[in-house]
Amino acid sequence: MKPANMNDRFLRACRREPVDRTPIWMMRQAGRYMSEYRALRAKHSMLTLCKSPELACQVTLQPIVHGVDAAILFADILLPLEPMGAPFEFAKGEGPVVHEPVTDRAGVDRLRIFEAEEGLGYVLDAIKLVRKELNGKVPLIGFAGAPFTLASYLIEGGKSAHYIKTKKMMYGDPAAWKLLMEKLSEVTRRYLRAQITAGAQAVQLFDSWIGQLSPLDYAEFVLPHVQYILKDIETTGVPVIHFGTGTSTLLQLQKQAGGTVIGVDWRMSLTDAAKLVPGVALQGNLDPLLLFAPQDVMKKRAAIVIDEGKQLPGHIFNLGHGILPETPVENVKALVDFVHEYSAR
Amino acid sequence: MKPANMNDRFLRACRREPVDRTPIWMMRQAGRYMSEYRALRAKHSMLTLCKSPELACQVTLQPIVHGVDAAILFADILLPLEPMGAPFEFAKGEGPVVHEPVTDRAGVDRLRIFEAEEGLGYVLDAIKLVRKELNGKVPLIGFAGAPFTLASYLIEGGKSAHYIKTKKMMYGDPAAWKLLMEKLSEVTRRYLRAQITAGAQAVQLFDSWIGQLSPLDYAEFVLPHVQYILKDIETTGVPVIHFGTGTSTLLQLQKQAGGTVIGVDWRMSLTDAAKLVPGVALQGNLDPLLLFAPQDVMKKRAAIVIDEGKQLPGHIFNLGHGILPETPVENVKALVDFVHEYSAR
Repeated sequence: MKPANMNDRFLRACRREPVDRTPIWMMRQAGRYMSEYRALRAKHSMLTLCKSPELACQVTLQPIVHGVDAAILFADILLPLEPMGAPFEFAKGEGPVVHEPVTDRAGVDRLRIFEAEEGLGYVLDAIKLVRKELNGKVPLIGFAGAPFTLASYLIEGGKSAHYIKTKKMMYGDPAAWKLLMEKLSEVTRRYLRAQITAGAQAVQLFDSWIGQLSPLDYAEFVLPHVQYILKDIETTGVPVIHFGTGTSTLLQLQKQAGGTVIGVDWRMSLTDAAKLVPGVALQGNLDPLLLFAPQDVMKKRAAIVIDEGKQLPGHIFNLGHGILPETPVENVKALVDFVHEYSAR
Repeated sequence: MKPANMNDRFLRACRREPVDRTPIWMMRQAGRYMSEYRALRAKHSMLTLCKSPELACQVTLQPIVHGVDAAILFADILLPLEPMGAPFEFAKGEGPVVHEPVTDRAGVDRLRIFEAEEGLGYVLDAIKLVRKELNGKVPLIGFAGAPFTLASYLIEGGKSAHYIKTKKMMYGDPAAWKLLMEKLSEVTRRYLRAQITAGAQAVQLFDSWIGQLSPLDYAEFVLPHVQYILKDIETTGVPVIHFGTGTSTLLQLQKQAGGTVIGVDWRMSLTDAAKLVPGVALQGNLDPLLLFAPQDVMKKRAAIVIDEGKQLPGHIFNLGHGILPETPVENVKALVDFVHEYSAR
């Protein structure tokens, strides 16, 4: 029997039910801004942390001390690339490097669809362990990268400024692109289902770089594939957060693709976002850079987000993107406390 | 007496007057994608090209062969930093490096306001030379960087991923920020006025990185300063293009700040942009990556931009951002021809 959740604020907000306080968690809440995390990273590589369920569990639990209303599994969106046949590493200071980028149809043909239980069993084990350790204290969020964002790493071989190779394939070889997106979608769908079976109580789909696309390109080259994933995951009844950045002109299409909750960054107010995608819960949207501001400035801006969020059918407080490594840890703690205090008024 | 323009399509579109064909020019149309430019850069540094009126003139004229309807002066938005007291260089493969970044109030205090005729006389000389060489063939556009974008380079010391130091000053020392923006605005205002006096027939204000800001931050920390520049330049009667990227949620505020023409990137359709900022001419908005697509795909997308543009009071065809160095030159030529042919139908 799974333990009951003592704190179900986050899940209630996802389901658009009343909450006593606005729930808050933060993308990359387990990360380099915490000395406990840096201590572990001094001993282990990023991939070792991800692949060792005990270590991944330990990192996942680190930010709970800040009082956040959900844990998010410590993992990386690129983990599925290795069992697909495209291994990568995190090069020092350079981010991920895919050893053999996918440059053409033949490369796409070589990619394998796999069962998460086989290729990513260590993630599922970590989920089980975290659920046990959390013992219902807060819910656990699982996650995966969305097909476009994963494709951009696969094709470019790492981070990219302009996505030249990605868009070249998208525009120049639409059949190869479609096959690539279908493979990534099927892998992601199975992976998210397996995470839910293992115990994830909500999942987030990260389409972090989708804001590089025009609405026309999103509709043609991405939407059907994200929809394939999300419409299936929605049938599990587990809340799905659909997240991207720079998405002000994509929100309506993203909602069409699916998601119980839509993520919004700081470029658009929650109120304006709600006009575009009414009736859905929203997650966001403080600029992560406000964690570098004096606390009174940070709180003033957080109050606006909370006030706007209270007018929505459901609101989960979050940043518009991940916490940066240089962030002062005391401001993270102060933000969590403020969101709880201010929203209870 | 200044020569009459034989091709005034661009200026007519800026003024929202009827045109025989949609005018087109492209940001960074003089640049590394052209072998003629690479040949010059093999012999001279970027700053040498900028600071030598004859060379700057030569580079400015290079893309005229493609049939574009305007020339844009070859220069760099950072040139004013040196006479302000913050010299920089273009480091190989790394972009601009400001030798002593402005990190605090004392650094802001040290920045000088200067007369363009003294500090940037070489730019004004280049303008005069280009006007003479063009002899009215197409109009010449001058330009400057906008205060936020310039401030980000000054404070970060170069390009930035997250603008941590910039936003830290903005949120943490609003008085220093205000003084910095006032100094940059005054320098930019004088610089644009001097360019117009020297012969620029239109000017573009590049606020390239403004899309990093929330609408709240733009309104509080940037808008008054851009407005100070643009409201003054508008009184000259010379068209002003107000440009940024990632600005879907800032367009209305940008229009409030000023500009005869508003630049739009590919993230929002021209039709949707016109709903937000009706009555103004728009410039844009093809994704520069479509220049890497097969020509039939590129033309299909360009046709959509042209068709939408024809419904506007004024439309100047451009990319949503600059031409990338890797762009196939034959596609640039093909795009110019297509825009002229298709829009004449």
